[in-house]
Amino acid sequence: MNIRQKLSAEETITRILDVAEEHFRRVGYAKTAVADLAEALGMSSANIYRFFPSKGAINQAICKRLLNESHDIITTIMANGGSAATRLQDVLLALNAFNKSRYTAERRMHEMVAIAMEENWAVVQEHMTFLVGCIARLIAEGVAQGEFRPHTDVMLTALLVKKSCSCILHPMLIAESERMGPQDAAQSRALVDFIIDALKI
Amino acid sequence: MNIRQKLSAEETITRILDVAEEHFRRVGYAKTAVADLAEALGMSSANIYRFFPSKGAINQAICKRLLNESHDIITTIMANGGSAATRLQDVLLALNAFNKSRYTAERRMHEMVAIAMEENWAVVQEHMTFLVGCIARLIAEGVAQGEFRPHTDVMLTALLVKKSCSCILHPMLIAESERMGPQDAAQSRALVDFIIDALKI
Repeated sequence: MNIRQKLSAEETITRILDVAEEHFRRVGYAKTAVADLAEALGMSSANIYRFFPSKGAINQAICKRLLNESHDIITTIMANGGSAATRLQDVLLALNAFNKSRYTAERRMHEMVAIAMEENWAVVQEHMTFLVGCIARLIAEGVAQGEFRPHTDVMLTALLVKKSCSCILHPMLIAESERMGPQDAAQSRALVDFIIDALKI
Repeated sequence: MNIRQKLSAEETITRILDVAEEHFRRVGYAKTAVADLAEALGMSSANIYRFFPSKGAINQAICKRLLNESHDIITTIMANGGSAATRLQDVLLALNAFNKSRYTAERRMHEMVAIAMEENWAVVQEHMTFLVGCIARLIAEGVAQGEFRPHTDVMLTALLVKKSCSCILHPMLIAESERMGPQDAAQSRALVDFIIDALKI
């Protein structure tokens, strides 16, 4: 396969994912068939199946792409200067904002998220591991810089920080909270501050 | 209406709720019609409608009954002697255990919980208010006894404590966690300790 063909395959995959994501958001995951996507893309279902063995595989790829976007945001913040506490606060609030805009703005999206979480547990699990790893690194840096008190098990503490922020990070909980009225940004910030204070000396 | 008739109405309501709860758990909320409940109860649908205007109203009453059970558990712990920190820990872990056993042991139950949360938001909201009020009282007692550091806004701190425990209290998150394997009791305890430490002097 030459470079031209390889680029074209990548482009095709991107197009399939773009169109599928738009369909899943607008029409719903359950109500969208691979044939509908084929029609919208102006290609055969067989051509879609060359790249994705099933509708579930397409959803998994969309899910992975969204998670990669959030990883990029986290990685950028991690590389910033500034105290560990500030960067930890930024990571948690940026993820809150990202998840809010990407997963819960549209009703249909809940279905995709729920299915992704049930069917593509490995992808979600990988994301959790990445996030907890980043939090652990920030805690360790904070301890080294004398900002945070020492923790006997940094990975456990990082997991607890992530867990205690579930209500501002978990798509389903953000959505539930949004149903009660627009989520209060000041309250998300207060929660993050409360958790970070727990780490401080 | 004399006392005998009144008792009988209460007993009828209890029977309807018992049978409905069993049906919703076993068959599913969506798949159960009021006529099915009537048949199982050996009474007419019209008689059920004398007490509950709709299937939704029955679900709301079941939901309220479950929440009242958890209120009794909380009230009992609140009245115990012991430090505020210990009682707060007991309240959070007892609620975790209660929700785990009542809401997530059976797959069908998720549907009931999800519907209850969407349709009967007032009942859920009332429960949240009760829980946050109890946590606030324990924090205030802890501050008075010199266990906890002073908080400028005890109600906000109580809300943050509740929010930070979402992943061990929220039925949907407990269920999600259970799907990954039996939930680690030691981890729930570690989370509660982490949060309570944040309150301490």
